[in-house]
Amino acid sequence: MEFSEWYSDILEKAEIYDVRYPIKGCGVYLPYGFKIRRYTFEIIRNLLDESGHDEALFPMLIPEDLLAKEAEHIKGFEDEVYWVTHGGKTQLDVKLALRPTSETPIYYMMKLWVKVHTDLPIKIYQIVNTFRYETKHTRPLIRLREIMTFKEAHTAHSTKEEAENQVKEAISIYKKFFDTLGIPYLISKRPEWDKFPGAEYTMAFDTIFPDGRTMQIATVHNLGQNFSKTFEIIFETPTGDKDYAYQTCYGISDRVIASIIAIHGDEKGLILPPIVAPIQVVIVPLIFKGKEDIVMEKAKEIYEKLKGKFRVHIDDRDIRPGRKFNDWEIKGVPLRIEVGPKDIENKKITLFRRDTMEKFQVDETQLMEVVEKTLNNIMENIKNRAWEKFENFITILEDINPDEIKNILSEKRGVILVPFKEEIYNEELEEKVEATILGETEYKGNKYIAIAKTY
Amino acid sequence: MEFSEWYSDILEKAEIYDVRYPIKGCGVYLPYGFKIRRYTFEIIRNLLDESGHDEALFPMLIPEDLLAKEAEHIKGFEDEVYWVTHGGKTQLDVKLALRPTSETPIYYMMKLWVKVHTDLPIKIYQIVNTFRYETKHTRPLIRLREIMTFKEAHTAHSTKEEAENQVKEAISIYKKFFDTLGIPYLISKRPEWDKFPGAEYTMAFDTIFPDGRTMQIATVHNLGQNFSKTFEIIFETPTGDKDYAYQTCYGISDRVIASIIAIHGDEKGLILPPIVAPIQVVIVPLIFKGKEDIVMEKAKEIYEKLKGKFRVHIDDRDIRPGRKFNDWEIKGVPLRIEVGPKDIENKKITLFRRDTMEKFQVDETQLMEVVEKTLNNIMENIKNRAWEKFENFITILEDINPDEIKNILSEKRGVILVPFKEEIYNEELEEKVEATILGETEYKGNKYIAIAKTY
Repeated sequence: MEFSEWYSDILEKAEIYDVRYPIKGCGVYLPYGFKIRRYTFEIIRNLLDESGHDEALFPMLIPEDLLAKEAEHIKGFEDEVYWVTHGGKTQLDVKLALRPTSETPIYYMMKLWVKVHTDLPIKIYQIVNTFRYETKHTRPLIRLREIMTFKEAHTAHSTKEEAENQVKEAISIYKKFFDTLGIPYLISKRPEWDKFPGAEYTMAFDTIFPDGRTMQIATVHNLGQNFSKTFEIIFETPTGDKDYAYQTCYGISDRVIASIIAIHGDEKGLILPPIVAPIQVVIVPLIFKGKEDIVMEKAKEIYEKLKGKFRVHIDDRDIRPGRKFNDWEIKGVPLRIEVGPKDIENKKITLFRRDTMEKFQVDETQLMEVVEKTLNNIMENIKNRAWEKFENFITILEDINPDEIKNILSEKRGVILVPFKEEIYNEELEEKVEATILGETEYKGNKYIAIAKTY
Repeated sequence: MEFSEWYSDILEKAEIYDVRYPIKGCGVYLPYGFKIRRYTFEIIRNLLDESGHDEALFPMLIPEDLLAKEAEHIKGFEDEVYWVTHGGKTQLDVKLALRPTSETPIYYMMKLWVKVHTDLPIKIYQIVNTFRYETKHTRPLIRLREIMTFKEAHTAHSTKEEAENQVKEAISIYKKFFDTLGIPYLISKRPEWDKFPGAEYTMAFDTIFPDGRTMQIATVHNLGQNFSKTFEIIFETPTGDKDYAYQTCYGISDRVIASIIAIHGDEKGLILPPIVAPIQVVIVPLIFKGKEDIVMEKAKEIYEKLKGKFRVHIDDRDIRPGRKFNDWEIKGVPLRIEVGPKDIENKKITLFRRDTMEKFQVDETQLMEVVEKTLNNIMENIKNRAWEKFENFITILEDINPDEIKNILSEKRGVILVPFKEEIYNEELEEKVEATILGETEYKGNKYIAIAKTY
């Protein structure tokens, strides 16, 4: 099955996201999908909290003059901003934008908060919905008109060096985040012509989807003093001078959910990393006539044993076990426990791993230990498998050869790395190879230009 | 100090919410305020999850024709809906509303999900921002143009009885919620002319603010089949007939945060219920020359002991202890521990309760136990105190006397209860008493009409 077909199919069958809302690019996170989202963003929230970031919440509406204040920034967004023009039947004096991103509201407030160097650093984040009037083809959780989940962090510092270090911290946080989810990535410095509107430079994380196209899954921007000059975020330095704050910002969106689905899934359905699986262990009682009671009793006993430590569910629906197996395989539950009369007699428990589709038995007494070990094992395995596929998608060439590149990108696809040379690193190269330059990247110790077909 | 002045002042000084954003009725949840919000909504989230509700997330934009589908509903909202008319420079074919509430998007989807009676009940909720183009005077966290936090639950059932029971369940969940926060309430059935647009009837929770005006803090609506008929949410009954779903919905907003602040606070600042306090225990080292090390060491020792169980913070800023005390009193930290050289010598610890402003000493060995007990005690105490003030605000009259009512409502204020009589229960009564009829209510076993000045 072709990837994009598989992807739409799985969103529906695993009950992740319903696309049938009557606005293009807007849909519904269903309860099962919502839980994946919740556990996933809980990971990044913890990483940010631990590293001294504060969560806050800023307004969704931005007055036109505020959004337009930074010239580069507004140029980058004006074609895709939704505008509110009326309240009730009244025409508004000033048009209001639905935030496409929140630099302008946040930096307007930062000006009010920053007076002296001791007010800095500020490290703040919010998890909100943002909006883009996409004219391109929309795709669920990948290219949305309502980005339902945007985790955006914004920082301000008193020195350039501190802002540089903040970029490094952000990259290291995002690495931990994607490593926790087993999502492989290539980090590159985006070319000048593709950086964030208003930034000094942009660092980006790209992963590779099963169809060989790259997906930008995170960005980290060093904003220098561009925004602080525009928004007058001025502080008194230790020596009594005035300076503008040095800023960074970095974001992650619903695309991380799309990546969890796409990167780990297989032809049978989802394979969820245990850490974000709404159900980590599903118990399926195998009911045989006359044995109903002892089977259900044992199922409940196992449930009680596991529930303090794992997210566990008993499937007691009145349908064939085969259908239950299938449902939970589609939904990517990492581990299944089958409870049948024979096993009960032998004091054994049958387990099934979704990632390898293997069945195996353990002694009842070892259950807790084995479940924990197996879940860790599943995580390791799906992470390694994902990185292996990722590495296989990378082709290193010794020099630029447009025809060869076009060829690889239409057959094998993935990312092509060519040794970095200043003289070829320009926008024309994109035309020559009919693909996107992701940017400069380090790969196994060498510096390359990364080229790919992107989402 | 007058209440509304106190309220604005405390929002600023305790760093809850910054009103200086350049759109009326839109502001910023600051980190400290955000944490209160987060812990508060975590309580309701748990209560809903435990009672079989599923969290989901629906689009923020609503096409005009969808919003206008239910006639009563749109009439109730059309004057205060924000309209998006443009995407970039393109005028949209269909205007899009910013959700004022989500009946229409959610019920559009429910139609797609419901086919047979076994698809019911559906009990779903989301926590989102909603928008009202308020023409009235706005107030932070009370009357906003962007309601930053709206927890709305929506249910569909196969029988009228089940929907009735759902209303009861919702009321009992909200009781538990407000009880956990120590917020007193009067529950009443809103009069016909004040029910939710499109509902059969509306049950509401009102609390009383320190200025004697009531504040609606939660509503529960029985929607009957009004919306299901409009949105064609049709199911096959067990007997093979077709019927329309029976629906309810119920909501809670940022007003609960305003209530926590207003109900429990005093002239010194906030008094936070420990369960939602971002810092439950603050440790203030009392530094004396030559004793710096032993004091800081002991402070850290206490911190390490408490941190597994409580949200604890050491204030090691280089400022006078008196200023620290003041800061944390304003921010409503329930319990303060003062660590000084003398106490260390005597193996004692000095504690300070924010609610009673009492200082007392305990043996070091009893610390954990006393902290836990005192926090529970503080919760009990502020809850009882709040209910006492609330009861004092209630005046029971034997009959309607407009002058007397006007008099009470301009002097003592609060809520007036008059024995329920069908013949006086109408909109004209509101004009006569120059106040709002909250509705029919039961109070200590009797049925009354509740009258008040409202927010």
